[in-house]
Amino acid sequence: MDIASKDFFTEGIFYNNIYTSYRIKELLYDKQSKFQRIQVYDTHAVGRLLTLDGKTMVSQKDEFVYHEVMAHIPSMISRNAKSVLIIGGGDGGVVRELVKYPNFEKIHLVEIDEEVIEVSRKFFPECTCGLNDPRVKIIATDGIEFIKKATNEYDIILIDSTDPVDLAQGLFTQTFYANVFKALSANGIMIAQAENVFLDQYDVKSIFSNLKKAFPIVQAYWAPITIYPGIFWNFAFASKTWNGTDIDPAKIEWMITKQDELKWYNMDWHKNAAFTLANFHKKTLGL
Amino acid sequence: MDIASKDFFTEGIFYNNIYTSYRIKELLYDKQSKFQRIQVYDTHAVGRLLTLDGKTMVSQKDEFVYHEVMAHIPSMISRNAKSVLIIGGGDGGVVRELVKYPNFEKIHLVEIDEEVIEVSRKFFPECTCGLNDPRVKIIATDGIEFIKKATNEYDIILIDSTDPVDLAQGLFTQTFYANVFKALSANGIMIAQAENVFLDQYDVKSIFSNLKKAFPIVQAYWAPITIYPGIFWNFAFASKTWNGTDIDPAKIEWMITKQDELKWYNMDWHKNAAFTLANFHKKTLGL
Repeated sequence: MDIASKDFFTEGIFYNNIYTSYRIKELLYDKQSKFQRIQVYDTHAVGRLLTLDGKTMVSQKDEFVYHEVMAHIPSMISRNAKSVLIIGGGDGGVVRELVKYPNFEKIHLVEIDEEVIEVSRKFFPECTCGLNDPRVKIIATDGIEFIKKATNEYDIILIDSTDPVDLAQGLFTQTFYANVFKALSANGIMIAQAENVFLDQYDVKSIFSNLKKAFPIVQAYWAPITIYPGIFWNFAFASKTWNGTDIDPAKIEWMITKQDELKWYNMDWHKNAAFTLANFHKKTLGL
Repeated sequence: MDIASKDFFTEGIFYNNIYTSYRIKELLYDKQSKFQRIQVYDTHAVGRLLTLDGKTMVSQKDEFVYHEVMAHIPSMISRNAKSVLIIGGGDGGVVRELVKYPNFEKIHLVEIDEEVIEVSRKFFPECTCGLNDPRVKIIATDGIEFIKKATNEYDIILIDSTDPVDLAQGLFTQTFYANVFKALSANGIMIAQAENVFLDQYDVKSIFSNLKKAFPIVQAYWAPITIYPGIFWNFAFASKTWNGTDIDPAKIEWMITKQDELKWYNMDWHKNAAFTLANFHKKTLGL
């Protein structure tokens, strides 16, 4: 066994003080797009694995967790929501979950790198299957620029981005969050993937500090994402107000009748577990 | 960077299809005891790290999570409990948390390998600081044999073991659980570390199947253990009955007045989050 060999995909994390290595069966795709290096591996542990610039993004084995908790948490508490914007998320997994809701009339996917979508269509068709829904519009542009021009337009905005470095750095700033606030409707909700509280304490603190300058209501929820460094993943929830009063993100307006069909999400988990944080988690976020 | 070099401690997991490597500053201790190879590393990411036969056991950075959730969950729901047995747990972390409760009169630590305790006293004094409490008795013997001779003796039994292979394999069998049941008092509670639902599905299913043959009440809770493979860790909760009725593990009888002093555990997390499982988690456990 030589984990430094080409039989393994290895990701250095936490300032390269921890590495995770996946044994690979085959490298299925490897190309530099206009923006980043896109690779797809077939792995023994997690099936097909999409990486961008050497960072794990989506695996067949556990993609359902991330995509369900990004999509269903805001959708379930916002029965009147009609319009959704996703920034990033070119793999299509979040859209697949969103199209299950009949109330959405407009689902905009703003992905900077069209090649991510094309690669996902080819290697992760189980994720991209919602992209052909007639309510979905794919806009291949930079989300940071796109959001500057939107005002009072979306009921839900989801930031399905990579880590706060390089290409995605601008998606974690106070300025960006202020633009998201402006782009949201009166009762709008924003969700963003927000790193790991144990390994990315600096990033997490900074995300929540920036968010609190832009939104009156900021909370957090968690879910385990097996292929992400640190796994116990943190999601930011930010909102304006809800019917003129503070929104309670654990209050559910919708009822999924077939919630057993979801692989991770259920309403009990949403209401009781997702937003209930342990001391270390709260303290790290400053909540 | 060569993660295969001696600058890294590497653990192969999930049938060696995933590896985790920690960059080390120094190997502080490396000795084969009568039972296992005991090593202590000083790492960049998680401080001092104890490994047994090449598996991560305790790190300075995150030990508080495991030790708090093992100790406080059963202690908080069992105000009348007087006697506790810990099988394994030679690092002392769980005992450190247990001695905070005035109701415990007898805390027995049954650790097969005395050298683990000695190494922990030397390198993890912040974990072993409760071992000198006068209520604590250390018994250096095999927990599997010890439990056979105990009947109706403990109110709480904690299985703080390594993985279900080699030395610890016998701590996960139906026979062992039946002996734990016999060793518990009428309202007794058992807690056991129970692996990872994403990566150890086979082990987890087997643990819960065996437990359900031995106990009328079996539930599960979770906590993130950053140094354990898969991180989103699963704990088994099993009990006889509680005052003649089914015990509700999320019902708390105690009140910790200074719960802010705990680093992970709080009562809100215990009551609402810890035992609330998502669909995949429930399905994997057969709950």
